[in-house]
Amino acid sequence: MKYCSDCGQSIVVQVPEGDHRERYVCAACDVVHYQNPNMVVGTIPLHHDEQGQPKILLAKRGIEPRLGYWTLPAGFLENGETSSEGAVRETLEETCAVVENVAMYRVLNVARTNQIHIFFRADLPLADFTTTPESTEVELFAFEDIPWRQLAFPTVHKTLEDFIDEYHQGQFTAAMFDIDHHSWKVLDI
Amino acid sequence: MKYCSDCGQSIVVQVPEGDHRERYVCAACDVVHYQNPNMVVGTIPLHHDEQGQPKILLAKRGIEPRLGYWTLPAGFLENGETSSEGAVRETLEETCAVVENVAMYRVLNVARTNQIHIFFRADLPLADFTTTPESTEVELFAFEDIPWRQLAFPTVHKTLEDFIDEYHQGQFTAAMFDIDHHSWKVLDI
Repeated sequence: MKYCSDCGQSIVVQVPEGDHRERYVCAACDVVHYQNPNMVVGTIPLHHDEQGQPKILLAKRGIEPRLGYWTLPAGFLENGETSSEGAVRETLEETCAVVENVAMYRVLNVARTNQIHIFFRADLPLADFTTTPESTEVELFAFEDIPWRQLAFPTVHKTLEDFIDEYHQGQFTAAMFDIDHHSWKVLDI
Repeated sequence: MKYCSDCGQSIVVQVPEGDHRERYVCAACDVVHYQNPNMVVGTIPLHHDEQGQPKILLAKRGIEPRLGYWTLPAGFLENGETSSEGAVRETLEETCAVVENVAMYRVLNVARTNQIHIFFRADLPLADFTTTPESTEVELFAFEDIPWRQLAFPTVHKTLEDFIDEYHQGQFTAAMFDIDHHSWKVLDI
């Protein structure tokens, strides 16, 4: 941030009176421009095939970051929507899939990138989906076929691991975890 | 937003190519300035007094909005911290209280104000706290003494109601709810 979005004059970095952190402050109009973490919301679309086998819908990223890696459908929460509404919208936008019965499952702090990721469990009753501008491939994966070494983000990895564990246990529990990016090795595809 | 924070030139409101919503876009450098929801994080500081009676720490707001109303200690999540770190920091800043053993409890979507509130259960081992620039009074309340009609925010009301219910049931379950501001009557103090 170099210029004040209110008045167009130059920004200085300083600790405002009564504050304890450096902020972007307008030297002309004194407005403080706070920078805060962003929310990423997505779903774990669960489909049961004709044999009753559980499968999860993943999308291969057609855009950066992590182009070419597989992800759960997810994206930035927009103003004016709830996090579950955002997760359902992102799933539709990225895979054309319509999910139902969303329930909060994993809340993941990614402090290094100033993000909070929330993934919702979701039912995918119909195996209707397709590629989109954001996803070059969209595919249902049986648990044993999840492309673990080609996943886009550590939050997706953690969410899928926990989901499959708890699916086998027969009970899902919503929980929060911190993700240390440095401990997650970026693997080649 | 009137001016581009990157180049200082004028902003126009338009739907960028490939997007589906109006955004603030710089007419000179084409940068899109996204606006996204903010996270508010706080705690439910639980203290047991010498008789073993459970009490919750509340703070009377010394700043707007809702000056003079009681709240759980909470505030905006900062870049570079996890949501539990932010909740512990806000509790310290607003009440000088040191809480421990934080656990995610309520995640509340407040779409109308573009906010997500996360409240954590927390232990307050010592009854050490005091007023601060943000809080004109800080006090431990027995469950039956909670000032329900003088609470600052509907998310605080919902969180306290659920917490006290589940305390009596002997089991806490993390969960998400949507808060409809319009259904929450603002009461006079």
